[in-house]
Amino acid sequence: MKKSLLVLSLFGAFAGVAHAQSSVVIYGTVDANVQKVTGTSAAISKHDNNKLGFKGVEDLGNGLKALFQLEIRYELDTGTNEIGGTYQRPLFQGQSRVGLQGAFGTVRLGRGLTAYQETSTAFEPWSGLPSRAGFQGDIHTAGYNSDPLSPIGNSKNRFSNALFYNTPVLSGFQLNATVGAKEANGGPAIQGRSLTAIPQFAANSAGDANPFSVSGTFTNGPVAAMLGYERNAIETKLWSVAGSFNPISPLKLMASYQEQDFGHTAFSAADEAKSWVVGANFTVGSGLIRAGYGRLTPENATKTKRASIGYEHNLSKRTYLYAEASQTKVVSKTNYYGVGVHHNF
Amino acid sequence: MKKSLLVLSLFGAFAGVAHAQSSVVIYGTVDANVQKVTGTSAAISKHDNNKLGFKGVEDLGNGLKALFQLEIRYELDTGTNEIGGTYQRPLFQGQSRVGLQGAFGTVRLGRGLTAYQETSTAFEPWSGLPSRAGFQGDIHTAGYNSDPLSPIGNSKNRFSNALFYNTPVLSGFQLNATVGAKEANGGPAIQGRSLTAIPQFAANSAGDANPFSVSGTFTNGPVAAMLGYERNAIETKLWSVAGSFNPISPLKLMASYQEQDFGHTAFSAADEAKSWVVGANFTVGSGLIRAGYGRLTPENATKTKRASIGYEHNLSKRTYLYAEASQTKVVSKTNYYGVGVHHNF
Amino acid sequence: MKKSLLVLSLFGAFAGVAHAQSSVVIYGTVDANVQKVTGTSAAISKHDNNKLGFKGVEDLGNGLKALFQLEIRYELDTGTNEIGGTYQRPLFQGQSRVGLQGAFGTVRLGRGLTAYQETSTAFEPWSGLPSRAGFQGDIHTAGYNSDPLSPIGNSKNRFSNALFYNTPVLSGFQLNATVGAKEANGGPAIQGRSLTAIPQFAANSAGDANPFSVSGTFTNGPVAAMLGYERNAIETKLWSVAGSFNPISPLKLMASYQEQDFGHTAFSAADEAKSWVVGANFTVGSGLIRAGYGRLTPENATKTKRASIGYEHNLSKRTYLYAEASQTKVVSKTNYYGVGVHHNF
Repeated sequence: MKKSLLVLSLFGAFAGVAHAQSSVVIYGTVDANVQKVTGTSAAISKHDNNKLGFKGVEDLGNGLKALFQLEIRYELDTGTNEIGGTYQRPLFQGQSRVGLQGAFGTVRLGRGLTAYQETSTAFEPWSGLPSRAGFQGDIHTAGYNSDPLSPIGNSKNRFSNALFYNTPVLSGFQLNATVGAKEANGGPAIQGRSLTAIPQFAANSAGDANPFSVSGTFTNGPVAAMLGYERNAIETKLWSVAGSFNPISPLKLMASYQEQDFGHTAFSAADEAKSWVVGANFTVGSGLIRAGYGRLTPENATKTKRASIGYEHNLSKRTYLYAEASQTKVVSKTNYYGVGVHHNF
Repeated sequence: MKKSLLVLSLFGAFAGVAHAQSSVVIYGTVDANVQKVTGTSAAISKHDNNKLGFKGVEDLGNGLKALFQLEIRYELDTGTNEIGGTYQRPLFQGQSRVGLQGAFGTVRLGRGLTAYQETSTAFEPWSGLPSRAGFQGDIHTAGYNSDPLSPIGNSKNRFSNALFYNTPVLSGFQLNATVGAKEANGGPAIQGRSLTAIPQFAANSAGDANPFSVSGTFTNGPVAAMLGYERNAIETKLWSVAGSFNPISPLKLMASYQEQDFGHTAFSAADEAKSWVVGANFTVGSGLIRAGYGRLTPENATKTKRASIGYEHNLSKRTYLYAEASQTKVVSKTNYYGVGVHHNF
Repeated sequence: MKKSLLVLSLFGAFAGVAHAQSSVVIYGTVDANVQKVTGTSAAISKHDNNKLGFKGVEDLGNGLKALFQLEIRYELDTGTNEIGGTYQRPLFQGQSRVGLQGAFGTVRLGRGLTAYQETSTAFEPWSGLPSRAGFQGDIHTAGYNSDPLSPIGNSKNRFSNALFYNTPVLSGFQLNATVGAKEANGGPAIQGRSLTAIPQFAANSAGDANPFSVSGTFTNGPVAAMLGYERNAIETKLWSVAGSFNPISPLKLMASYQEQDFGHTAFSAADEAKSWVVGANFTVGSGLIRAGYGRLTPENATKTKRASIGYEHNLSKRTYLYAEASQTKVVSKTNYYGVGVHHNF
């Protein structure tokens, strides 16, 4: 994603002279498609999240930097804040963070993707795009919610009220960690193992444990690997191992395996889910081919299987047209077809 | 409306050198007035929609361009998102669209004014401003809603989930078309011809037909004309013919005629409404005089008549002060007086 | 707070040439801390309001200027619009105003801090920051609400639907006045002296008097003083006298006294509250020490006492780290500790 720097000058003067005193970067993504899903009418939708963001870096000297990022998410087809289910997500659904960067790494406070959720997208054939051809939401971490005690529909892969730490990259290794506070955020009651009358987590309750997320990544030439572990505020655990390999420069092969343990709130002994996804990204001329296959196996329940293929045709470094299709089978099969346009600014 | 271009440079460098790599235009309108309406206290309100927008154009070569526009609407007097009735409208109430432009015309996806609603304002003496001196809402298309199946209070002259196409201008002719998807958007139940218990359109229902809107415009020297037709998702139909003429350059005379047919959902045979509006815009020195008169005639119901006069005094190309008044008669008469300031950035 | 000016050029051209035609200033504050309050878990919160603002000034010639300001407020820790209680405040909670400035002073329309609330923060040791170490909300004007007829949780120190006037500074004197319209804004019922069944102010009622706020300030070398008076739409009155003195340049001593009279809506004769706050700001090297003590004495009710100490360590003109603590006693004692980062852009 290409970013742009606004050239700024001091306020007081209004002299019309560009003076690189300060900087706010405005960036974003606008993505829209026409899509058809088995059993529904053709609809206008998206294959990527729509973004309008503001960010900046201030050089404090001695290698120290202050940084912030605020990212609005919205639905291009209706003009609203991003929707989760039928709920309007927070204005800065993407992220809202401030922090410092130095030789020690990066420390940030606020709201954003957890360490695991942020690193895992590099090993998913749709790069974590929320497209119905992608695997992130329906296979990869299906049913898992990083933030179950926030309002229904809120982001499923972010922590609010959290501290984010990333080490520097050392010999190809990087460690990332996120720890959330035990704060109440107005979420719904979660029944879990308890009675409806006395839910395990009452409405607007805080977690009974600090949620945390860690991931380690390793990159060496054509090889990359990731190990991740996360425990949310209702003590569901998720771990994942993933890797990618470029046999030739334009071809990236990738695979990931995930396990969930939701025993802390499960009614029955069927308290696990496993998933795996394999895929490839192939750069060909000014295009990118995506292909993937994945399975989700909840304990004692029906498997979900998905196969997907997609093509992105670059009109420039910032704009591409795309066509993609997927077939998902749970009990019956659901086909998805989408053609659209994706523009970064 | 004057727009401004942010001079941008590549992100990575932060070098303080303006480099016209990319561009986001930030623009907007801030408008506030003090107004008095018969039977109410003096209030702080507006005569134009308040806007804060972000847009950009990327040159893709060979005459092809990618373009996007995101427009926040808000109430300046209370700081909220734009209000429709008592409902907060979408963040990007103005529009949220992405598309391509070339020799074939302009194609966009997202949410915005319908083809008819966008072109009709050139033939309305208040240019479609939502002022109580204007005719757009209360006379022109009174009672008609382009998007009746979205939540109550949502925009009445936009399509969500739509495809927008504009031809190039050929010998003064241009054709514009908008087609919406049959998507559910969380709207209320619409009883129409059915029982309350079994409404014609249940809550959150999709349309039974694709809504569409077309308009054709013709411009030749001092003469301009428009023909428009629209059918919304509950199959209310609206057509309009309008024209304008500049006998001398600073004077624009205009007239329009509209008919609505809401027979698809009407209880009785009184299923039509007709309206006409005549008006003039007269540029005098650094000022603009607006004058208009219009009538709405719903079948077998009381007529609405409105006469309006207004003056805008330009302090610059971006800023004007205004004073305006109107008298509206349905059964009794309601007078409106407003004085305010209008600033574009 | 350092502000930044975006260098802008005319839209049409997109020529990549910086042309100081117009200007929108994007500015903001991102503030986050880790804090601990007696009886609660460690939490991620803030000591300042988080802002993202857009503003501009247009020179109209002859000393006349048009100006506007739109300020988004948000919660950095959850990414939402600013929260008041459990209510999402308006998008432009900070302010949304447009106006003119000239030899006559400044006139603005819209929503913003009242004259009193805006000038009083210069005499409060935490500069009006909403920190739990500050005195503005819990002592200074505790229980008072400038805008009680707007929705619950809406700003307590702003007027919506208002006209704002500031005189020029003449020999160190400045007068500021704000007058609000008697408009209904969707607020809750206020029972006041009436029955629950027939509340003194029904839900969504307008005020029975125009709310207004005035303040006068005087500055002469090391001495500054303020006199303020405000009456809200339910006729609660608040007046205040405050002063500051710099015995040496880096040390500012300050004191304020406030009285409230809520007799118009009080059930009993205990219809007053008094408060006083004393404090100091001491600049030492690249740091700032804040200290303060204050008391609130509601008539025939328990006093609130607060003592606070804080330190801000500047990493640059735009960024500081801070640590602060306070002890508040109503019946029992509540301690607050916070460490955080504050960044202006």
